[in-house]
Amino acid sequence: MISKNQLKLIRQLGQKKYRKQFNQYLVQGEKNVLELLNSPLKAVDIFATEAFINTYQAQYLGINFICAEEELLTKASTLVSNNAAIAIVNMPQAAQLQTSGLILALDGVSDPGNLGTIIRVADWYGIKHIVTSTDSADAYNPKTISATMGSFVRVSVSQVDLPAYLATLKLPIYGAFLDGENVHNTQFTGSGVLLMGSESHGIREACAKLVTDKITIPAFGQAESLNVAMATGIILDNFKRQA
Amino acid sequence: MISKNQLKLIRQLGQKKYRKQFNQYLVQGEKNVLELLNSPLKAVDIFATEAFINTYQAQYLGINFICAEEELLTKASTLVSNNAAIAIVNMPQAAQLQTSGLILALDGVSDPGNLGTIIRVADWYGIKHIVTSTDSADAYNPKTISATMGSFVRVSVSQVDLPAYLATLKLPIYGAFLDGENVHNTQFTGSGVLLMGSESHGIREACAKLVTDKITIPAFGQAESLNVAMATGIILDNFKRQA
Repeated sequence: MISKNQLKLIRQLGQKKYRKQFNQYLVQGEKNVLELLNSPLKAVDIFATEAFINTYQAQYLGINFICAEEELLTKASTLVSNNAAIAIVNMPQAAQLQTSGLILALDGVSDPGNLGTIIRVADWYGIKHIVTSTDSADAYNPKTISATMGSFVRVSVSQVDLPAYLATLKLPIYGAFLDGENVHNTQFTGSGVLLMGSESHGIREACAKLVTDKITIPAFGQAESLNVAMATGIILDNFKRQA
Repeated sequence: MISKNQLKLIRQLGQKKYRKQFNQYLVQGEKNVLELLNSPLKAVDIFATEAFINTYQAQYLGINFICAEEELLTKASTLVSNNAAIAIVNMPQAAQLQTSGLILALDGVSDPGNLGTIIRVADWYGIKHIVTSTDSADAYNPKTISATMGSFVRVSVSQVDLPAYLATLKLPIYGAFLDGENVHNTQFTGSGVLLMGSESHGIREACAKLVTDKITIPAFGQAESLNVAMATGIILDNFKRQA
């Protein structure tokens, strides 16, 4: 049974101010909750259907499963579907910022779905950590978590003063612009920052002036731009083929 | 003023059965309507705010603009935002199916947003025509049109009996699987079919048996899969760098 207070907490954790206040966030849906259970992250409570609990309880001893009707989970959930399970999770300690290797940095990427898709493709290409400007989407937003398709357990995200952080790095900073060097011809060194801006504003001046290499995905048709998550995936593929 | 009947028609065109019945579809939002106005496609009526009409009417003579309050456009629209304009458009005649060049084929890609994102990235890479299985998403679904970010005017989509169509082609058929040859090493000839399946079912047997070359985007991390639109974009980038 979900208590009234627990239901209230789930609802509250849909909002950033309560996530900050309680230092907890939600993981929703079967796929994401299973990824959570298989990860080192700590679930406080898992509200799940009887079917879910019967299937998985034996594999995950020591986890506090709380049985709930799917209807109630749907009502509690901030998502429209995937309501077999909802977990309340303690936020991990802030990850240490990278100073070498391949670093993915996002400037003003404010759409949670885009951030989640970027986390997923970063995970595909083996990136463990993403840094974002403080006005980028919240990595703990339920829409972000949902779009990661489980990759949130392997990729951490730090919101930082992005220009200040970039300025401390002794690495090439590859910035994605519409008028840079063709990524098909760029020589990547395996270590460096890939910096992506938002679709509407691009990389803003404070970060743009720190870019050492402007790069561009070559267009063969007439679309004006690509979605930022798509562009991130394509550029990562180019980085990795050369690294 | 939007009449009651016009309002009813807009609502109806949000549904596939009425789009089929009237042979018309909706284009919504400033960006998509402007792309429409700049294209050879024929808009029957354009319902728009006074501000939109004042800005663009002089550039687009002969277009039937109908003034409406933004509030009413929002109410009429099937989308939550971007309600400066809604156009009713006649469906174009069926495009001729390609038999050479680079052909993009989709098997069971049923999410309209994914199809729209694929249309956008196909446009970026200069693909003018996409063929899909008959159970793929409707290219005239408002969510598809919206996700194309204007690319719907340059890329046509044909729903076909996909296995039958593929069987007629004398071209290599590159199918995206999780266990194919690394796309970084595949030699593309510039002419051929890129065949993508859905995230949940992959390429189904009827099409899979026609595939001549199984290909895979190499993974460097632990994500289980990529979104089908993302995977399409990354593979197109690999095709185009070699073509």
